[in-house]
Amino acid sequence: MSNLVAVLPGDGIGEEIVEQAVRVLAALKLDLELEKADVGGRAYDLYGHPLPKHTLDLAKKSQAVLFGAVGDWKYDTLPREFRPEQAILGLRKNLGLFANLRPAVLYPQLADVSTLKPEVVSGLNILIVRELTGDIYFGTPRGIRIATDGLFVGDKEGYDTMRYAESEVRRIAHIAFQAAQKRQKKLCSVDKANVLETSQFWRDIMIDVSKEYPDVALTHMYIDNAAMQLVRAPKEFDVVVTGNLFGDILSDEASMLTGSIGMLPSASLNATNQGLYEPSHGSAPDIAGKNLANPLATILSAAMMLRYSFGNEIAAQQIEAAVGKVLEQGYRTVDIYKEGTIKVGTSQMGDAVIAAL
Amino acid sequence: MSNLVAVLPGDGIGEEIVEQAVRVLAALKLDLELEKADVGGRAYDLYGHPLPKHTLDLAKKSQAVLFGAVGDWKYDTLPREFRPEQAILGLRKNLGLFANLRPAVLYPQLADVSTLKPEVVSGLNILIVRELTGDIYFGTPRGIRIATDGLFVGDKEGYDTMRYAESEVRRIAHIAFQAAQKRQKKLCSVDKANVLETSQFWRDIMIDVSKEYPDVALTHMYIDNAAMQLVRAPKEFDVVVTGNLFGDILSDEASMLTGSIGMLPSASLNATNQGLYEPSHGSAPDIAGKNLANPLATILSAAMMLRYSFGNEIAAQQIEAAVGKVLEQGYRTVDIYKEGTIKVGTSQMGDAVIAAL
Ligand SMILES: CC(C)[C@H](C(=O)O)[C@@H](O)C(=O)O
Ligand SMILES: CC(C)[C@H](C(=O)O)[C@@H](O)C(=O)O
Repeated sequence: MSNLVAVLPGDGIGEEIVEQAVRVLAALKLDLELEKADVGGRAYDLYGHPLPKHTLDLAKKSQAVLFGAVGDWKYDTLPREFRPEQAILGLRKNLGLFANLRPAVLYPQLADVSTLKPEVVSGLNILIVRELTGDIYFGTPRGIRIATDGLFVGDKEGYDTMRYAESEVRRIAHIAFQAAQKRQKKLCSVDKANVLETSQFWRDIMIDVSKEYPDVALTHMYIDNAAMQLVRAPKEFDVVVTGNLFGDILSDEASMLTGSIGMLPSASLNATNQGLYEPSHGSAPDIAGKNLANPLATILSAAMMLRYSFGNEIAAQQIEAAVGKVLEQGYRTVDIYKEGTIKVGTSQMGDAVIAAL
Repeated sequence: MSNLVAVLPGDGIGEEIVEQAVRVLAALKLDLELEKADVGGRAYDLYGHPLPKHTLDLAKKSQAVLFGAVGDWKYDTLPREFRPEQAILGLRKNLGLFANLRPAVLYPQLADVSTLKPEVVSGLNILIVRELTGDIYFGTPRGIRIATDGLFVGDKEGYDTMRYAESEVRRIAHIAFQAAQKRQKKLCSVDKANVLETSQFWRDIMIDVSKEYPDVALTHMYIDNAAMQLVRAPKEFDVVVTGNLFGDILSDEASMLTGSIGMLPSASLNATNQGLYEPSHGSAPDIAGKNLANPLATILSAAMMLRYSFGNEIAAQQIEAAVGKVLEQGYRTVDIYKEGTIKVGTSQMGDAVIAAL
């Protein structure tokens, strides 16, 4: 196992939040080698591609990628293949990062920043397991063509292919069941099996895999109902497993329930525990460079990196405990600030975490 | 224009809620001819199909369908083509009901039943315009096959086709822009154009159609972000237009924000204002036959029917005003009941609306 970490800050607030995570890692004096490279809009500006070959090569040979965020309005008019977010899709696909783990946790100290009533969300702790390299994200054929059947023959149409192969569903199912075993042993698989063939196929495989995990209670929910139940009674959920497209939607909805998306990390893993770690929030170009961004999601992503890619549970917990402590001490960046707490900037929040380690 | 209304109560609470809507219509002494037929699980039990030919024929020759709800756990194990919800899909497809209008409105009297903080949702009034006969719901090819390309060649895979034809997007765009013109003149088109070809195609057409509506402000949002913004700041939305799949998810999420999905009607229209009207909620088999269900969503669906299919705005507003009045008077079914209000059953709520007319 290599000790190499590719550090890819990206655009917007990426640079400043990743800087704090790197400082936290340094403070732990671990045997890690960090190497930085450009990605996203910045890489496009410099090298004409959001995921230049040297960046991809670095990521491939690293055990982990610590990722900031990509994107800025100024790239919105580029052809799709040059847009910043293609870097994320390219990294996922090239590294085979099929398992995306996204916790939606409400820190007790932040219960009142949610738009939901405190009694509905206090204690919230959901883990969303999103399949990340299949589904309609990558399915072919796709494009624009002239319709040759249906009600609109002769018309121009846009089209995409949703697809899931059996082994693809099986491997994410195992990840999800094993995650549930370590938690409340409840797994909810979300699909649209009343309409989609892909979903019915997905559901049948989930049921089959569940036979290997008799200690986990598997339930199924349609995506529309899941989007509702997350608002109605989010604490009913423990682990949720779903495909790439539905996972994109649900994990964002779930993280917003906490009101503190600036706190939420994510991990994207392949079969050899190589992983990409990034905050759940975006590049927030409007506040970039102003020392306003919350670095905690990125710092917590670094903790996930130590846990999953380097098997260093102790260091991971050290970071997580330090984050808990700074919240306890009342430090807040502006996104989670309320009267009576101490407003700090990005780097001061990094200082506070390091002091708390 | 025929004056025929097909009344299809369906399963679960369908019978009792539709009964109240029919009573309300009768009280208005309109020149309507109502004819009842079976649909859903009940129709499957009786005729071996959730949408029997005589029911479909009745719907086709009617100007409007007043629909209750379909579905019950006991049909969950049937092959998909016999499941109750196929009746809804069949009616939409056969009648060409491409425009689904789903208001998510928070009645001031019910502000506290939402799981969101009152200041976040009070005054909420969103109209979701969902395309209802295209997209991955009906796109072909679809099924199960052996993968012949990609990483999983030789593996079994489930697959579906997402597709939108240009004229299909144009016609729903016009509906949405015209709806926005009658409201706050803000239209948000939701897609996943950073990933899907269908979405980029959709977005380009929305932009093109917007040139005909210079008074409406068109914005675009990715579906994952929309699912978040609905939780973060739902009152930012006025009219939302989106495809069938994303609309399924967003309209349910939006309606749950109000905490009173038992209050929300919906209309599904074709190009000749033939329409299907149904409550936004489901068949709730657990409370069926107990005089507990809230009939107001169905009664308000009947109001939408008078407005859109029969052009009777006055009668529509009469019903809507009556519903406002019964809420003002404090009448509540159990789903929206809070201490200090008057708990009533399904039929008593119908009585109250009729008295208020
Ligand atoms: C940027 C985009 C392609 C990406 C996705 O849809 O997966 C993002 O929304 C995410 O969830 O990481
Ligand atoms: C029952 C189901 C097929 C249907 C849909 O997905 O459209 C329902 O969820 C709805 O929104 O009316």
